[in-house]
Amino acid sequence: MRSDPHPYGIHRTLDPPGALPQLAWRLDASSPPRENEIAVDVQALAIDSASFRQLLEAEKAGKGNVADQILKIVAERGKMHNPATGSGGIFLGRVRRVGARHPAAGVLAPGERIASMVSLTLTPLQLERVGGVNRRAERVEVEGTAILFARTLYARPPSDLPEETSLAAFDVAGAPASVRRRAKPGDTVLVIGTGKAGLLSIAAAREKVGAEGRVFALDASEPATSRARSLGLADEIWTLDARDAVAVHAAFEAKTGGRLADLVVNVANVPGTEPASILCAREEGSVLFFGMATSFSAAALVAEGLAHPGTLLIGNGYVPEHAEMAIDLLRRHAALSQAFADLLEERP
Amino acid sequence: MRSDPHPYGIHRTLDPPGALPQLAWRLDASSPPRENEIAVDVQALAIDSASFRQLLEAEKAGKGNVADQILKIVAERGKMHNPATGSGGIFLGRVRRVGARHPAAGVLAPGERIASMVSLTLTPLQLERVGGVNRRAERVEVEGTAILFARTLYARPPSDLPEETSLAAFDVAGAPASVRRRAKPGDTVLVIGTGKAGLLSIAAAREKVGAEGRVFALDASEPATSRARSLGLADEIWTLDARDAVAVHAAFEAKTGGRLADLVVNVANVPGTEPASILCAREEGSVLFFGMATSFSAAALVAEGLAHPGTLLIGNGYVPEHAEMAIDLLRRHAALSQAFADLLEERP
Repeated sequence: MRSDPHPYGIHRTLDPPGALPQLAWRLDASSPPRENEIAVDVQALAIDSASFRQLLEAEKAGKGNVADQILKIVAERGKMHNPATGSGGIFLGRVRRVGARHPAAGVLAPGERIASMVSLTLTPLQLERVGGVNRRAERVEVEGTAILFARTLYARPPSDLPEETSLAAFDVAGAPASVRRRAKPGDTVLVIGTGKAGLLSIAAAREKVGAEGRVFALDASEPATSRARSLGLADEIWTLDARDAVAVHAAFEAKTGGRLADLVVNVANVPGTEPASILCAREEGSVLFFGMATSFSAAALVAEGLAHPGTLLIGNGYVPEHAEMAIDLLRRHAALSQAFADLLEERP
Repeated sequence: MRSDPHPYGIHRTLDPPGALPQLAWRLDASSPPRENEIAVDVQALAIDSASFRQLLEAEKAGKGNVADQILKIVAERGKMHNPATGSGGIFLGRVRRVGARHPAAGVLAPGERIASMVSLTLTPLQLERVGGVNRRAERVEVEGTAILFARTLYARPPSDLPEETSLAAFDVAGAPASVRRRAKPGDTVLVIGTGKAGLLSIAAAREKVGAEGRVFALDASEPATSRARSLGLADEIWTLDARDAVAVHAAFEAKTGGRLADLVVNVANVPGTEPASILCAREEGSVLFFGMATSFSAAALVAEGLAHPGTLLIGNGYVPEHAEMAIDLLRRHAALSQAFADLLEERP
């Protein structure tokens, strides 16, 4: 089994052998690529928001700076799979070599810029160096090599948008695409968290619910809510901590006249926001959990404990055409592109 | 806030104050009940399957026997909330006192037998003693006091079924009720795990998909699959370890002629079964995760990594009328009742 290059990359799993790379503790990240793989010169990692936040907190707690923590995790696991949060992110790089039996042979040329559209938690990665850390963009400049399997998705950043913007949008593209799939015209949507995924979700929600629908959002950070307000797409946006379920529920219930939300989109990057998400959804409504800090058992047991029969969805990072959809949202809404640029610009 | 008896029980949260009891580290489990609470003389705990399995493993690893571990957790947290799995279970007991302002005042009488229909992870509990541990039923006899809040669900075990059977069915009633809600006539359903929740899910699936539909199931344990076969309700049941995603997927794909499942119901009690669950679902299909060993990030990232756009659902333990539905399934299918009795009977 391990000598056959598997389209899902199982041949690179070292521990435990035979597991999907996502579930492996450690991957073989060595070059050169097998005949159905692509090797990429990696230039930057966009770290998942929950992971990046955890790395920052560990740095504050004296566990080494973010760059060193990333080097250590990748050296140990052969992938940037944060053991504390279980999450990854995506990379940006240039194609080095395309295996002759990879589906993209003859399509992708060495030197082309691509971004991975699957999580770093399943992507074999070797790092020589970690350079600048952009804390606002949750992005780090690196030098290294990544491997893409036959079934691994990638995307080419478009030429009409800043590359950082595209990379950031790709990383969270599943959220707005899922919002578009789940929201219906006329719905009331509440977006919890107004980071990158939240901004795109607000835009996707507004397009889908239309003028008859209502879009609300909240975030604990005042700069984040100001930025979200600048989109001009939501009915109202509050600065509120979603961990305070009782306060958030009371405010939202009053604001909607007791109707609550048909769809709650959780894109928060902190733990403990499941109760507010569930309490703000109507009994016939749905909660779409995209924040990687979501706890399965907390969501399931809180709903049961509150006798709330709502539909609870695990946000799926893959929706067909999600990369294109996210880029199109940025193109259609100049204020959204501007907010992304603002979000990604490192303050001195 | 803490002096007002809150219908969700927030007044009993000690750490952190203001949190919902489910998310609290520690609850105030002291008697007597407040005016909108019920105090119950608890007689037995039905421990969640993932939690019970973890307690058994900890016992093997020399961390104390199951009874002592339960006493320790409850003493420390004021509730039977397994810190390793995040899950609980339900209790059976006799009503001691109903607060004058509880919705059941005048409805429930002291001495009546009731079972809690919400998780022990949010139920204030004090234990004087832990008696017999029934490893097959995942049930322990206890003496102690539990508190029900104004909004906490409970159910009366029916008189025409053995009490252990009802209690076991109540504990997992959300699974078959959700299967009934999600499956459609003619669907192909795969049930992963044939414990209590699995047996009820097989019966619910068969009733819903009808003769045109197909119901499959698998479990790693040969006694468990034999028992499930005795229902006579599934098309086929295999003894397979769901942690081996590649083997399970290959077998299921061959068996269904590549069609795969419209609905996969995960009621496994071990970690690592997310990939098999996702791989066995059609791209347009759904996976309903009910096993409390499910990892949110594993499910989300595996689907993304495999570019699988299926709908991923967090099983909600509360579905209106779920207790009655589970009991009715047992009444309609004599072989199911018999399988439950067999499953619950402690071997010497």
